[in-house]
Amino acid sequence: MPDQPSHMTPEEFRRHGHAAIDWIADYWASLDDLPVRAQVDPGDVRRLLPASAPDVGEPFDALLDDLDRVVVPGLTHWQHPRFFAYFPANSSPAAILGDLLSSGIGAQGMIWATSPAVTEVEQVVLDWFAEALGLPDAFRSDGAGGGVIQDTASTATFTALLAALHRASGGDVRRHGVGGAGWRVYGSTQAHSSLVKAAMMAGLGEDAVRTVAVDPATQAMDVDALRAAMTEDTAAGLRPVMVHVAAGTTSTGAMDDIAAVADVVRDRGVWLHVDAAWAGVAAVCPEHRSHLAGVEDADSFVTNPHKWLLTTFDCSTFWVRDRAALTGALSILPEYLRNAATESGEVVDYRDWHPQLGRRFRAIKLWAVLRTYGVEGLRAHVRSGVALAEHVADLVAADDRFEMVTEPSLSLVVFRLTAGDEQTMAAMEDVNASGEAYLSHTTVEGRAAIRLAVGSWRTTEADVDRTWRALQQAAGRVSS
Amino acid sequence: MPDQPSHMTPEEFRRHGHAAIDWIADYWASLDDLPVRAQVDPGDVRRLLPASAPDVGEPFDALLDDLDRVVVPGLTHWQHPRFFAYFPANSSPAAILGDLLSSGIGAQGMIWATSPAVTEVEQVVLDWFAEALGLPDAFRSDGAGGGVIQDTASTATFTALLAALHRASGGDVRRHGVGGAGWRVYGSTQAHSSLVKAAMMAGLGEDAVRTVAVDPATQAMDVDALRAAMTEDTAAGLRPVMVHVAAGTTSTGAMDDIAAVADVVRDRGVWLHVDAAWAGVAAVCPEHRSHLAGVEDADSFVTNPHKWLLTTFDCSTFWVRDRAALTGALSILPEYLRNAATESGEVVDYRDWHPQLGRRFRAIKLWAVLRTYGVEGLRAHVRSGVALAEHVADLVAADDRFEMVTEPSLSLVVFRLTAGDEQTMAAMEDVNASGEAYLSHTTVEGRAAIRLAVGSWRTTEADVDRTWRALQQAAGRVSS
Ligand SMILES: Cc1ncc(COP(=O)(O)O)c(C=O)c1O
Ligand SMILES: Cc1ncc(COP(=O)(O)O)c(C=O)c1O
Repeated sequence: MPDQPSHMTPEEFRRHGHAAIDWIADYWASLDDLPVRAQVDPGDVRRLLPASAPDVGEPFDALLDDLDRVVVPGLTHWQHPRFFAYFPANSSPAAILGDLLSSGIGAQGMIWATSPAVTEVEQVVLDWFAEALGLPDAFRSDGAGGGVIQDTASTATFTALLAALHRASGGDVRRHGVGGAGWRVYGSTQAHSSLVKAAMMAGLGEDAVRTVAVDPATQAMDVDALRAAMTEDTAAGLRPVMVHVAAGTTSTGAMDDIAAVADVVRDRGVWLHVDAAWAGVAAVCPEHRSHLAGVEDADSFVTNPHKWLLTTFDCSTFWVRDRAALTGALSILPEYLRNAATESGEVVDYRDWHPQLGRRFRAIKLWAVLRTYGVEGLRAHVRSGVALAEHVADLVAADDRFEMVTEPSLSLVVFRLTAGDEQTMAAMEDVNASGEAYLSHTTVEGRAAIRLAVGSWRTTEADVDRTWRALQQAAGRVSS
Repeated sequence: MPDQPSHMTPEEFRRHGHAAIDWIADYWASLDDLPVRAQVDPGDVRRLLPASAPDVGEPFDALLDDLDRVVVPGLTHWQHPRFFAYFPANSSPAAILGDLLSSGIGAQGMIWATSPAVTEVEQVVLDWFAEALGLPDAFRSDGAGGGVIQDTASTATFTALLAALHRASGGDVRRHGVGGAGWRVYGSTQAHSSLVKAAMMAGLGEDAVRTVAVDPATQAMDVDALRAAMTEDTAAGLRPVMVHVAAGTTSTGAMDDIAAVADVVRDRGVWLHVDAAWAGVAAVCPEHRSHLAGVEDADSFVTNPHKWLLTTFDCSTFWVRDRAALTGALSILPEYLRNAATESGEVVDYRDWHPQLGRRFRAIKLWAVLRTYGVEGLRAHVRSGVALAEHVADLVAADDRFEMVTEPSLSLVVFRLTAGDEQTMAAMEDVNASGEAYLSHTTVEGRAAIRLAVGSWRTTEADVDRTWRALQQAAGRVSS
């Protein structure tokens, strides 16, 4: 037998493992002093790395050294207390350790039979989480529906579209493809770009997405316009298949009226998909559930614990009312995966719930978050984000060089400089370039705006105030 | 401001982190004594869990306790030294710690600008790995091609199909959908089920996949049959768009002849995708590269370090010759992601290389594997798997109750009981039920066969011998 390479011994694994944990704790402790946005140019990181992999193995410590030397300077620090850009991609100590345990277990849960606990813990945790969010019982795994962890909301929306096509076509699409049937998908002009991407990937093309106007003040979908569009399309022989409702748009956190849209689609047999990627998790708080009113009529619902809810990327929770539509669209049973449990019909095989076959034990990290915080702890986390956003709104109101663009939405505040678009963008870029804080932009009704999304558990009122002072100074500079 | 929940303090994180590392080391040490296959029935794991998430947070140790009490008995242990089923989903201490560091960093690399090091380290590591595998320069990131880490080979194959459709349609599919154009996709009868799933998801439907016969002895694609099928389809007005070549089929590890297929597709403008999900990584050894001969003519190539190459799931490495086809099919640039680096054209934005938008820093785990093992260490790992498989083949040859079904392929051995299908299945089930080892089955030319895939770095010759003895005893029982 040829020699095995030298793998880490158990003692070495413990030693390097403890060092990796300590590296993370030190990295977190250093964040406050690091520029939030990476200060590198294209190619800077690449240039620091050798051209080839080493022939002979190096000690693990060399990797830790290169994290400090090569990687950290090239990072925009998403876990920084003054990271306010996009939406947060939160993580928490409990989630990180939960995911570490999953790596150590290394089970692959493509079907129930390949490691039953992977599937059953996921089912239970998704039932727990559905209850914590106040979602309808129809989404629970003990009826005809159920939840699954997808990698991202983009995948969830794509999967919803495949299920919608399956249901609408009575299975024809699966067999013969989408053809030239004139399928139409609806979302507002503010719907996340993953809707168009889903239509492209599903073979419908960009043209199949009909974008519906929004109310200029709220940025929420104009439901009358949706109804008119669907009626018009149906009359023209097109086939509406799915409506995408945003419970929290990416740009401004606008809330489409799910119940009103449900009224429009109810008699048309059209799939209602609710994209609450960012805002959905706020429903752990009973007082932050109103934006989900009507969700009991939805066919599918997605929200990302990996955004605001302290769960390490990737963890996007997705529920359907009728899992048969999903598995009908996606199931394939090759010989080598045939097994008694699947044939008994008593189990769920998650590989039929998403595009991928192989899957890791992602439920552990969400389980760790739900258990170690408890629902009350998660509520406190959401409330603190909302309170900080209200504080930002007060600061905006108190300085007449700034103005709100839309009402604050949960922990997202969208504002601008009254001086104009150029000044708004310049002030934001000034703060970002300084590394003091990191914000991102959008356009609302054609005008530039700054988005400040609170979410990290490291963010304190002092961080918000410091960011605000930086913005005020930048506002002074750009208008002078 | 409302109270924040109590997050782990840095000291608590270090303490629980060290405990999690130690839990993993202890779990690994216990594996040899655990039954490989879970000994639970449907519902057994669920029943041990409470109906709802706790209101108040629990200590992290409670999770570790439940891993022992609830999870471990419900696991089939993929990291067990006598796990020989499916293909391995290997993991290694270095990869696990690399992925842990990624979780700690918590950066989201959807585009270069959101954290430059995430993208640049991935580009460099994929260039390193392409070189280590002897892949053509055309796949390197410094030309028109490039590599990306996909979650799974299923996603890679789906993405390849979208790129193929984009190129073949000159961008029409992206805009107007696949329509009723009669697209056809080719793969052998042994092609992985992800090919049909890709066709279903892309809107082509199962019918669009034309399965090509294989040589009964080798189970490799009959290239003459492929040529005839494509000629016939083209004459019938159908549009061949992609050929899927398996460099290592799932059932028997059969190797399609890439070079011969390349000759067939060359003048037809059809996309050539090589699925080497399992066997591709063996090319780190120069003597195990012959199955990739012809890959320089491929348009795309996928292999999974998360199978045999010690890299924690998920890590599927995917390369294309022309990245413009990929990004052409998948790019969308919403306002809030516009940035100077993207506009400069000097950077790669990986969210245009796959279905998902958000992405974690997966390159660290592969970087950790390549660096701590070195290419020589990886070769030694592959060689030891191949040698153990040869040892199994010798054992089969030495016992006339057994016979080989196909030639051993790298570290995969496929054999059966001469007594017949029923006995073959019963003997395997007997071993699996005992927990002594875990094997999976397939059918080859209509007859049942047992697959034994070596791959774990924990597997020794003694583990193989012990498994073989169990199989011999089972053979005795089922034939008496
Ligand atoms: C409303 C909405 N939907 C979907 C997404 C996409 O999320 P993911 O990266 O999980 O696909 C986002 C991301 O910001 C979002 O805001
Ligand atoms: C040849 C081949 N292709 C693709 C796959 C799918 O792999 P994944 O789970 O990464 O999608 C497999 C899995 O065994 C395989 O053997």
